[in-house]
Amino acid sequence: MFHRLTSVGYTPESGVNRLALNEYDIKARNNLVEELNKIDVEIEIDDAGLIMGSEGTGNDITAIGSHMDSVPNGGRFDGFYGVMSALEILMEFKERLNHRKITAIDFTDEEGARFQPSLLGSGMSTGKFTKEFTYSRQDKNNITFGEALQNSGYMGIEDNRVVKQQFSRYLELHIEQGPVLELEGYQIGIPRGIVTMVVDHVEFLGESNQAGPTPMNTRKDALVAAARFAVEVRDVAKLSNKELVTTVGKFNNYPNAYNVIPGKVELNLDTRSPDMETAEEYSRTAKEAADKIAGEEGVSVKFQNEWTTETTMFDEDLKKQIEKSCKALNLKYKYLYSWPGHDAQYMNRIVPTAMIFIPSHLGRSHTKEEYSSDQDVLNGLAVLRKTVENI
Amino acid sequence: MFHRLTSVGYTPESGVNRLALNEYDIKARNNLVEELNKIDVEIEIDDAGLIMGSEGTGNDITAIGSHMDSVPNGGRFDGFYGVMSALEILMEFKERLNHRKITAIDFTDEEGARFQPSLLGSGMSTGKFTKEFTYSRQDKNNITFGEALQNSGYMGIEDNRVVKQQFSRYLELHIEQGPVLELEGYQIGIPRGIVTMVVDHVEFLGESNQAGPTPMNTRKDALVAAARFAVEVRDVAKLSNKELVTTVGKFNNYPNAYNVIPGKVELNLDTRSPDMETAEEYSRTAKEAADKIAGEEGVSVKFQNEWTTETTMFDEDLKKQIEKSCKALNLKYKYLYSWPGHDAQYMNRIVPTAMIFIPSHLGRSHTKEEYSSDQDVLNGLAVLRKTVENI
Repeated sequence: MFHRLTSVGYTPESGVNRLALNEYDIKARNNLVEELNKIDVEIEIDDAGLIMGSEGTGNDITAIGSHMDSVPNGGRFDGFYGVMSALEILMEFKERLNHRKITAIDFTDEEGARFQPSLLGSGMSTGKFTKEFTYSRQDKNNITFGEALQNSGYMGIEDNRVVKQQFSRYLELHIEQGPVLELEGYQIGIPRGIVTMVVDHVEFLGESNQAGPTPMNTRKDALVAAARFAVEVRDVAKLSNKELVTTVGKFNNYPNAYNVIPGKVELNLDTRSPDMETAEEYSRTAKEAADKIAGEEGVSVKFQNEWTTETTMFDEDLKKQIEKSCKALNLKYKYLYSWPGHDAQYMNRIVPTAMIFIPSHLGRSHTKEEYSSDQDVLNGLAVLRKTVENI
Repeated sequence: MFHRLTSVGYTPESGVNRLALNEYDIKARNNLVEELNKIDVEIEIDDAGLIMGSEGTGNDITAIGSHMDSVPNGGRFDGFYGVMSALEILMEFKERLNHRKITAIDFTDEEGARFQPSLLGSGMSTGKFTKEFTYSRQDKNNITFGEALQNSGYMGIEDNRVVKQQFSRYLELHIEQGPVLELEGYQIGIPRGIVTMVVDHVEFLGESNQAGPTPMNTRKDALVAAARFAVEVRDVAKLSNKELVTTVGKFNNYPNAYNVIPGKVELNLDTRSPDMETAEEYSRTAKEAADKIAGEEGVSVKFQNEWTTETTMFDEDLKKQIEKSCKALNLKYKYLYSWPGHDAQYMNRIVPTAMIFIPSHLGRSHTKEEYSSDQDVLNGLAVLRKTVENI
């Protein structure tokens, strides 16, 4: 079922292009609803587009979920694995719940690839983001999240938000998206929490001119300034002895013609560290570098924080439960940090939360080469199953 | 007429967006044909989309022209000024041609902003490019030049190509697109010729991964490699004691999401010099830099020459005629090189050719700030008029 359903929006050449609420995401949602209907569970949809399938009664409610949206040219496992596992657990346990309840969740726009910031659906549904803020986010074609959600057919009601449910706990099964577990020979990762992420938006404004006649020493080349910035921030992070990674992933050059000196570059700087102060200090250093380089290149620069998420620490009891499951299943596990953000981050604000990681081959993720073996996929599911069983 | 007609496809916010054969270029063409019809001259269109308006008889034929297409967010003067001046000269002289002939020309896709390479229309019409090559050029939406030309309604016949006309000479009036004339206080520039242009395409291929979990020292970041390249080639050119300019104008980053390490960057390097060997030597140096940087960053690189145009030297007699006109009109003139390419470059291959430049305020060009004063516009027209008169 996992391999079949994650093929929606996938081609071998382009990977997965299931951006939040696009035609492929909607098709994946329709498929999920069809599967939930097959096993005859209750389906609720909230006004952030979250799909929740529930079975059982009583006050003890285990929520399990992840997301089905992808980045452009993304992989088949990221997020989708967690949703399919939640569905699988719901199927397996539905006949033996004994006055307990399980809810499987698909979160909307986890990636933030179409509508920024990321974790938009879980942010709104947990009360972190207002409806006004969330609905007004625009994609690159100026379509708002609110419009896309309305047009998708997955506009639900406020009463169904996760913050209004009485969940007892939230579990999320996910690929590591990094190389550590495979390199060190572990089968399962137990995230201590999620690192701090600081996302800054940097815009260099120079002077656009015909490439030929403008002498080298009178140019105000925004691309050269932005390129110097991208190299310098990378060098600083690489040489740092702190736990820190930083990435310029988005980089847009204007007017972007071969014979025109670039007049503007917009880019994003993504900085992460388990230590919030380290990440914020680095962001300040990057701002100083941008100002210095802009001065030297005769261009101007705007440096703005887009968002910052604090370090998240997951629930100690749930982490212990997962560790117990690994031991019972004889799987080699390691405690680590999650470097990417996850919906678990916002769920952690309202309910005890933990995650389970499986290895990503070569650490590849957000790319069509993303891969985890069937054995690893089944190992992760076994740990989730055992943990739910024990609980 | 110039100010009115160049407003097609112009807004104060976005400048001119009259890319070759787009809706605005077609509107501008319709306007030109309407003006040519008003003065009742013969109109011919060739199979590269060139529009030619002619009046007169006999074997002495003076062709005058330029182009109406623009770069994205371009200026109001570049090219359009030359076409309107040709039209003006045709109007002024049509009643007193005395067995001589004047042809005003609008060349197709001079800029190469939509279909590359630049000078595509003059290249095909002068026999430099084959019809097969020209028609198969694609824009970014995979529309071919042939399709766009067919759909524009400006598909003419092979017999009308400039190479089949018996032109005696070609003159082109244009803005300088550089700061020299204004800075040094000249009213007219007489280009000795057009510099060599070498355009290389460079592609860095790294490894796309999720930004968070990939440690800094295992990354294969294509953006960092391309950024180092852009900075290094600029630095080398800036420190060179040779007459040389170089520009990375086009820079496309993939997949271009804030939380994904870039896996690919494609860019163009544009190198110009009056001395062909200097330009080609620099291009070889840039290739070595790309290889070195790629090796250090663990990425691969493809470095390919897209096209090279040799230094063009204009006709000595025509340049002398233009100098004579400047003297007669008491206008301060300077001999210089044209650093941008022009249709005159390919016309020079088949017929004696020269150009006349007027100052560009602050050297701004290929931008909405492009500006030449009405006085300068009229000065250039006066030199063209006097030169045609003398001839």
